[in-house]
Formats: sequence, structure tokens, C-alpha cells
Amino acid sequence: MPSPVQGFRFSAVSAGIRKDGRVDLALAVADRPVIAAGRVTRNLVKAAPIVLASERLKQGLVRGVLVNSGCANACTGEPGLEAARRATSAVSRVLGADDTEIIPASTGVIGALLPAEKIEARVSELVLKLSPTSIDDFALAICTTDRWPKVAYATIETPKGKASLLGIAKGAGMIHPNLGPPQATMLCFLFTDAIIERPELEGTLMEGVDHTFNTCSVDGDTSTNDLVLALASGASGVVAHAEELLPAIENVCGTLARSMVRDGEGAEHAVDIVVRGLPTNDDARRIAQTIATSMLVKTALFGKDANWGRLLAAAGRAGVVFDPNASGVSIAGVEIARGGLAVGSEAEAEAQRRMADETYTIELVLGDGPGRALCVTSDLGHRYIDVNAGYRS
Amino acid sequence: MPSPVQGFRFSAVSAGIRKDGRVDLALAVADRPVIAAGRVTRNLVKAAPIVLASERLKQGLVRGVLVNSGCANACTGEPGLEAARRATSAVSRVLGADDTEIIPASTGVIGALLPAEKIEARVSELVLKLSPTSIDDFALAICTTDRWPKVAYATIETPKGKASLLGIAKGAGMIHPNLGPPQATMLCFLFTDAIIERPELEGTLMEGVDHTFNTCSVDGDTSTNDLVLALASGASGVVAHAEELLPAIENVCGTLARSMVRDGEGAEHAVDIVVRGLPTNDDARRIAQTIATSMLVKTALFGKDANWGRLLAAAGRAGVVFDPNASGVSIAGVEIARGGLAVGSEAEAEAQRRMADETYTIELVLGDGPGRALCVTSDLGHRYIDVNAGYRS
Repeated sequence: MPSPVQGFRFSAVSAGIRKDGRVDLALAVADRPVIAAGRVTRNLVKAAPIVLASERLKQGLVRGVLVNSGCANACTGEPGLEAARRATSAVSRVLGADDTEIIPASTGVIGALLPAEKIEARVSELVLKLSPTSIDDFALAICTTDRWPKVAYATIETPKGKASLLGIAKGAGMIHPNLGPPQATMLCFLFTDAIIERPELEGTLMEGVDHTFNTCSVDGDTSTNDLVLALASGASGVVAHAEELLPAIENVCGTLARSMVRDGEGAEHAVDIVVRGLPTNDDARRIAQTIATSMLVKTALFGKDANWGRLLAAAGRAGVVFDPNASGVSIAGVEIARGGLAVGSEAEAEAQRRMADETYTIELVLGDGPGRALCVTSDLGHRYIDVNAGYRS
Repeated sequence: MPSPVQGFRFSAVSAGIRKDGRVDLALAVADRPVIAAGRVTRNLVKAAPIVLASERLKQGLVRGVLVNSGCANACTGEPGLEAARRATSAVSRVLGADDTEIIPASTGVIGALLPAEKIEARVSELVLKLSPTSIDDFALAICTTDRWPKVAYATIETPKGKASLLGIAKGAGMIHPNLGPPQATMLCFLFTDAIIERPELEGTLMEGVDHTFNTCSVDGDTSTNDLVLALASGASGVVAHAEELLPAIENVCGTLARSMVRDGEGAEHAVDIVVRGLPTNDDARRIAQTIATSMLVKTALFGKDANWGRLLAAAGRAGVVFDPNASGVSIAGVEIARGGLAVGSEAEAEAQRRMADETYTIELVLGDGPGRALCVTSDLGHRYIDVNAGYRS
């Protein structure tokens, strides 16, 4: 496979950080220092790699990103920062880069210290294996409870030619991204070969993330380690602007976000919750998020129960004013409540049948205002319990 | 058994509202119109009985309360209001009371209309069976997914003698009470034979509820039908004031709230989440509630996993500022994190052993401020899924 994005190389090894021996250490490197933008978790409790990533992203030029699974290196204090510094320094030494040009990212158990010595021991091999085409290796190494690796591509169309955008992401739990200026333990790495000014990359990333990752929820738990990072190599020679980049970022991040929810821990469905008719988009978003994180709604999705009462009850506790008696609810295209009342048992039975689908849309119309919002959520079933109740998943 | 509280009678019948034929219709009546105070759900979507209860409680004098399980009569519009009016009118006719002196309350499926005709058909029998001692019948009839009925007593001690307080409540899902001035589908009925002025009953009820029901959560879903109602018959002849009534209300409501969480749908544990060291009680409460409703925390409680990283991660997303590096965590009396770092694997193993207990306390010390809060929560396990994913539980 030829590299779909110029100016970057990828590799992955097993460094023994995970107990199961799977690949758990990934590196992506640009051929030279490149423009970078990132967003990190808004959780007050920030993992050591997030603290370092925030600092290092301020300088704007980045050479690469070193990512491990199996250990979040969160709640590890100064020893955690030191371990993350040692790990990235080992990479920058071999590459001949500045220490601060390597961005660290970690995902896994909270409270365990990153084993820097295991990483140091494998850095030479990691750099030796770098290749423009080892994208799937990288994607696999950053997975934790994910059932599949998450990779997406888009083309950036400009008047003067085309450039490429590659996105690599991981889920699958503690997914309720709330990404601030430089936020996920979703991790998402975007690589483009377009030539872009840093403020445009920053702004576009922020807007794209708000429209995609920040609208999805698996469990309502915002991680200590969330990170979205975008690197622009410029190696295509094609200059791109925000209006050209944004559709590509929304395309790639939208695909990855939906894949992440569909792969939410133990999930069988990814359901779009659409709320409209409110005075403002913010009002609609508060309701969509309250529904998307309601345990009673999520268990009903698992049970394929067209329980519209739970939907309206969740909407009613969101702290937003609307008229319940003017509310309509559709599930998978079937209108089951109108004017706040049940449409009938036939409609409900049909909706119920359609809830067997992997993906479908639930729409609440709560007035005639212009405000609308989308939130993508997963169902809550037995496998979520199994994944998360086991000792230290 | 002699009646523990003078001036009230109770009864229950099976009216066929529930599909399983269990007792599902309960009545409590005072010998004459009595002082009443209530709080109803703050959910914007209010069930028909809640709308009527709010109106009727404004007049201050109440004769009784008619409660059904099996049907919430929520999202049923004007027909729902009419059905609730018909049901209570049937009772007031037989009792010779004013129509508005009977407070309706319902719990069960949302979106289904209350079958008023089934209730009308059983009202005569319901009134005939009224007895001062049929408290357990009443308690059983208002249960839905509850595994046990919930009844508690306290004595009100005054300088001039003693009066009694009886509380009857039900859980067990959609439990995240947020009870406003006249709010629960927890339902709680308090009966006292003390003589109390209405403003004192109102104020004491509000404070007592805030300290008990409003600090507990099973699933984070605030119901459309929550109601706490207090009736004071005065039949003991003993005058009570707020300072004498409050300890009794906190005792009874505290016992009922804890029983409700312990009986949370499918729950195996009731865990006290104590948060202290914040600048204000409100700050502490926001963090305690975020932890108490975190799916990752609740699955860890089910898994008996001393996963303090999930506790700190939930605290960190509560929107309250604290220093993670000065944070301490104890589980069931075992300190497992200090200064933001793990204490060690022995402490964790001991905490883990103690998490097998039905009830225990998790304490987070997040600074040296005076603010503290308690939130009682349940674990999230397979039985919660079973209870809620089944068709229209």
C-alpha cells in the first residue's frame, strides 16, 4: 500500500507495558519539525503525558508523537512526568530532535506509573521500523478495549490541487470527550500533507472536534488522557485554508467518532440522538447530552424497547424549558409520540422492530425554535458490565 | 399491632392496573382534613398526578392520598389529568370529602393512561378496608421494582411529650431525586400525629429531604413522578416545632433513602460517597454527585475493584477546582491514595476485600476547606440491565 499522506512514517512494537504481550508502543514521525495543533481533556485531573503535551504544543513545531497503551500514566505525580520525559527523550535522541519536539500520549490503567525503562529498551527498534505504510500497526498499538482499530482518510480539495488527511483514533471506554483548547481516553491523531498556517490548523481542529468527538458519549466519563493532535507536514506542496480543511477534518473525525461509539465498550448499537425545535443550539445540546448519558435510555436501547417516556423524562431533567405537550418523538423514522402523547401500539411495535439495527436515529422535536443538536450514543448492556467490572480493566 | 401514629387509616387492594395481579392501589386517609406539605419532582416533564398534587397542596388542608403502581400516568396530557381527577373524586365521594382534598400519586410505566374505571370499581372496597394498622399493605401496594417494602418510624420528642412519625416509601429505579418546593419515582409519605404549623412542616420537610433523598442516586435519572408528602393529624395532642420535628424527619427519610438505594434496581451495595476539603458544601456536592452517577465508578463497585483512578477522574470532570496532587482516597476505612498517588498494593488488596460488604464508605479528601457532602449510590451490575432492558419495565 502506498502511503496515503506524504511526509510521515509510522511504527509499533510490543514493549511489555500491556500484560497480554500485544503491540503497545507506537511512534509517528514527520520527516522534519512540522506545524502542530492539539486539544487536550478538560478534566481537571490531567495525566502526565497530557501536561507535557500541553506545554510542548505551545511551541507550535513538533517532530512526532509517542503513544503507549496499557498504562495511562495518570495520578502519578512528578514521577509520572519524569517517566514521560524519559520516554520521549529516548526517541528524540535517536532521531536527533529536540527533547520537546516529541509529544507523549498514554492510555490504559489510571494510577500506574509509566515503565520508562521498558520504553527506552525498545526505542531503537521502534525508530528502525518506521515506514510510511505502517499505519495499521500504529492504529493497533494504541487500542485498549477497542474491538477494531480506527483509521479514516479524506482528500482536501483546494483550487490548486489535492492534499491528504489521515486520522487514527482509539476508544472505547471513558468516552465522553470534552476537548478544550489543546482534550479525549479517546486519542486521535490527524496527519495531513497540506501546507497550512498554524492558526488555521488550530481553529479548524477546534471546530471539527466540537462537531464530532465532542458530540459523542459511551459512558459519560470524560477521561484524564483525551488528546486530539493534528500534524501538517506540507509535503504535498498544496496550500490549504480553513474552508478546505474543515470538511476533511469533519469527515475523518466524524467517521472515527461514530466508529468509536459503535465500538463503545460492549455496545451493540450506535444511535444518533437528534434534538430540535429549541430556542438555541446550546439548549438542544444540553437535552441531547442528557438523553445520550441516561442509564435508563441506554438500557432501553439495549433492550430494543421504544420507551419514549424515558426519552421525554431525560429531556425534562436537562434544565431546559420546553412544552412537553408539544413534543414529538420518532425512532428510526417511525413517529411514536406526537403532541406529548403516544401515537399507538402499531407505531411502537414497528419502531421496536427497527431498533434491532446497528445504527439508527432517535429524533425529538420539542418546539418550533431553530436550535438543534446531535449526540451519538451507545446502548448499555451486559457486555459493558463485563468489560468494566473486571479487576482493573 | 397497635397503630404507631394516631389519626390515620390505611388500605390497599388489587385493582388490576399491574399485569401481575399484585396489590396496586393504596389509600391513606386522615380522620379529618389535616395540615399537609409536599415536594414534587423538578423534572420539567411532570406526570398528571404531580400536576394535580401541586395544585391541591396549595390549599394546605388534605384528607388523604390515593396511590397506584403499574402506571405513571405521565406524558398522558389532558386525558391523564382527567383520569387522575376521576380516580380521586371517586374516593372523595365515598369519604364525603372535597374533590381537591385527595392527593393523587402514581408510579409505573410512562406514556400509559391511568385506567380510571378500574380504580372507580374498587374504591368502595378500598374505603371499607381502611384500618389504622394496614401500613404494610399500603407499603406493598406502592412498590414497583422494589424487592422489599419500605417503612420507618421515629419518635418526635418535645418538652411537653412525644408524638410519632411514620414514613412509607418506594424506589427502586429512576432514582435521582431532585425535589423542589411541592418533588420524586421515588414516593414517600410521611404521617405524623403531632400538632404542627404548616410553614414549619413545609420548611422542615424541605430541609429533611435535601439532607436525605436529594443526596441519593441509583441511576441519575430524575423521575417525572417523584413526590414526598407529609400529613400532620395533630391527633396526639402534642405540639411540635421545627427543631423537634427535623431530627425525626431526617431519621425516617434517611432510613428510607438508604433502603431505597440498597434496593436500587439490581443493586448489591449501597455506598456512601463522602467528599470533603472543598471551599464550599456545594463544590463538595457537585463532586459527590458526579462520582455517584459515574457508570465507570458504579461498575467498579459492582466488580469490587478499588479503582481509585476512576474516582479521581470523575471528580476531575465535575467542574470544580481542586488540587489532584493533594488528594486522598479511602475505601471502607483503608487509605489507598495520598497526595494524589497510590499508597500501595497491600492497601488496595485490603480495600478490595472490604468492598464485598453490602454497605461501606468511600471518602475523598480534596483539600483543607470546610466544604463537605454525602451522596449515597448503588453499584451497576448485570441485574440492573436485566431489570431495565426488558420490554417496558
